Amino acid sequence: MTFFEITHKDKKTQARTGVIHTDHGNIETPVFMPVGTQATVKTLDKQDLENIDASIILANTYHLHLRPGEDLIDEFGGLHKFMNWDRPILTDSGGFQVFSLGLQKEEKGQGSLTKIDDDGVTFKSHLDGSTHRFTPENAIEIQHKIGADIIMAFDECTPDNADEAYTRRALDRTHSWATRCITEHRRQKKIRKSGLSGNPDIKLFGIIQGAGHKKLRQESAQAISGMDFDGIAIGGESIGYNMKATKKILDWVNPIIPENKPHYTMGVGYSPTDLFDVVERGVDMFDCVAPTRVARNGRLFVHKKVNKKLYINILNAENRENKKSIDPDCTCFTCQNHSRAYLHHLFKTQELLAYRLATIHNLHFMISLMKEIRESITEDRFTKLKKEWTK
Amino acid sequence: MTFFEITHKDKKTQARTGVIHTDHGNIETPVFMPVGTQATVKTLDKQDLENIDASIILANTYHLHLRPGEDLIDEFGGLHKFMNWDRPILTDSGGFQVFSLGLQKEEKGQGSLTKIDDDGVTFKSHLDGSTHRFTPENAIEIQHKIGADIIMAFDECTPDNADEAYTRRALDRTHSWATRCITEHRRQKKIRKSGLSGNPDIKLFGIIQGAGHKKLRQESAQAISGMDFDGIAIGGESIGYNMKATKKILDWVNPIIPENKPHYTMGVGYSPTDLFDVVERGVDMFDCVAPTRVARNGRLFVHKKVNKKLYINILNAENRENKKSIDPDCTCFTCQNHSRAYLHHLFKTQELLAYRLATIHNLHFMISLMKEIRESITEDRFTKLKKEWTK
Repeated sequence: MTFFEITHKDKKTQARTGVIHTDHGNIETPVFMPVGTQATVKTLDKQDLENIDASIILANTYHLHLRPGEDLIDEFGGLHKFMNWDRPILTDSGGFQVFSLGLQKEEKGQGSLTKIDDDGVTFKSHLDGSTHRFTPENAIEIQHKIGADIIMAFDECTPDNADEAYTRRALDRTHSWATRCITEHRRQKKIRKSGLSGNPDIKLFGIIQGAGHKKLRQESAQAISGMDFDGIAIGGESIGYNMKATKKILDWVNPIIPENKPHYTMGVGYSPTDLFDVVERGVDMFDCVAPTRVARNGRLFVHKKVNKKLYINILNAENRENKKSIDPDCTCFTCQNHSRAYLHHLFKTQELLAYRLATIHNLHFMISLMKEIRESITEDRFTKLKKEWTK
Repeated sequence: MTFFEITHKDKKTQARTGVIHTDHGNIETPVFMPVGTQATVKTLDKQDLENIDASIILANTYHLHLRPGEDLIDEFGGLHKFMNWDRPILTDSGGFQVFSLGLQKEEKGQGSLTKIDDDGVTFKSHLDGSTHRFTPENAIEIQHKIGADIIMAFDECTPDNADEAYTRRALDRTHSWATRCITEHRRQKKIRKSGLSGNPDIKLFGIIQGAGHKKLRQESAQAISGMDFDGIAIGGESIGYNMKATKKILDWVNPIIPENKPHYTMGVGYSPTDLFDVVERGVDMFDCVAPTRVARNGRLFVHKKVNKKLYINILNAENRENKKSIDPDCTCFTCQNHSRAYLHHLFKTQELLAYRLATIHNLHFMISLMKEIRESITEDRFTKLKKEWTK
């Protein structure tokens, strides 16, 4: 079975549709992946995720390593069984969290919790301060125990403001770690008999780093593209958070990375329109916590016919007596069943149902938009659709 | 259409099955009513409630009066439409909350927020300290605006430790208020054309008070039974909270209250076995916040085959690696889909999904037990079933 096939290419841009085949089913690309950090997409159950047609979810290795621990998940036969989700899962490698949580503490003047050496990273749990260590080898071993369909190489996520000299050192480390990840991945597949004993035939993606340095980003693209990875991710602090930088970086690396492997930007999806910017640059996969996080704060996505800003704040007084749904054209459970006034009331009274209904809506919105984008590519009208959404 | 019909009577006890007919469907009795204080049974959506087969839910007038306000609900055509729940609803009158919230403050040394006079009660909102007033008249008007199928008379809920002299004064007030409630109810039905303009054909229940004084309880039973109420409730601070007192009070009033009206104990259902104690005393309806509240603290009901205590604490370490469901015989969504280990993980990580899955289980447990109890009555083996559960 081919892991990834491209089914259609846009004529004007690099946008493409494709299918990723996994042991837990197919994923039509480009795809938005909801984030289920701690083995749950916050507030949603498996039926909710099926109802909004999530074809793959993401889980975080850093969090699952701390709680409940990869050994417990392994004992259950992997994360799919532990959380009872039988569609595909992707785990990140923990690299981003190790560095971002460490940095956060440094900013608060508490000293970094993270110590990097060429062999790996020692960090302290943000929960109880206990010391842990990730190396390329154990990051891969942990991910094999978690048993997602797609796992990520362990990398050093350099901050945006890292100078060229530091970024170069970090990048060398990331590339050396990438090689070690591939070796360990092969070893784990042999040991754990992937695809035979209940574990999926796990695929490993490499990650391009290089902060904001063109030369280093291109060098990284070359290095990672030359290795035996099943997919190519573009990582870094700015990816997704800073769309200007994200687009620039994609334009740098795109001529280098192999077309026939899935392209994944880690952290894209703050605003629905961000999807267009990466899709037209040939990106097939992306994930972001924003749609679920802002949902819990009452920011709900709408079509621009409803509001030019592409969202409403359900807590605003104007929604207090509003009998309409969030978005009149939306077919999600929330919009089919409840008025803005009822949602406003649930948010005002801080009822837990509010957060789930809002999450269902925002994820349904993102996933529906992805479907629309895929159709537009297939029908050679992607640029037109982009204009409709972004002009 | 008869409002209430008794379909079967147990031969050994006063237990009986029946059907309550409302504009929003039938309710098979005896029935446990989940509590949806603020127009939502905490964490659950309407589909969850239908899935666990809730045939009626309760909402609280005090809370809905403060937020979102009865006028907003009225503008939506009533609570059924506001929250999109098309099965029956019962509202309490706000009496219990007015007094219990006032008393709580007094215990904390902040002075009572509640001032009672013969005409009504002035109280301060527990949310913002604003002053509000409930009288029998406006408590009924507010409830008509909310538009539940069954509403309650406004009463003074006397504390357990009230002496006989005070209880007598309070009781006289409650009886005089009961009469005023009936008058206002008739007036509201005329004004609002119940049953014609979208409002249900609202039924009004009276409430027996009298604290722990036999003579006063019996006097109250006589007074309330003599009035034109559609159902008879037994209220008071101890009802449900103190099952010994509850049983004693039921035994006092039972010979007096009319058999052909629904009997309702307000606040019963702390433990699954409490249901047997009131059902065998002819009670048809009861509600309690405990099953949903303790669920959110991780206390999950189980059959005594699983644990003699009739519950497990999912946070206990012994559940960390437990691959079994909460209760192997349970058919709820939670037990059909998730292990104790996964629930333990969700509770430990304080994921919001935990509270919903736990609530689904506990309510499903109570409602299934009610079904079992109804069947046992119909098949003349109620006493046997009670023994199985309580011996």
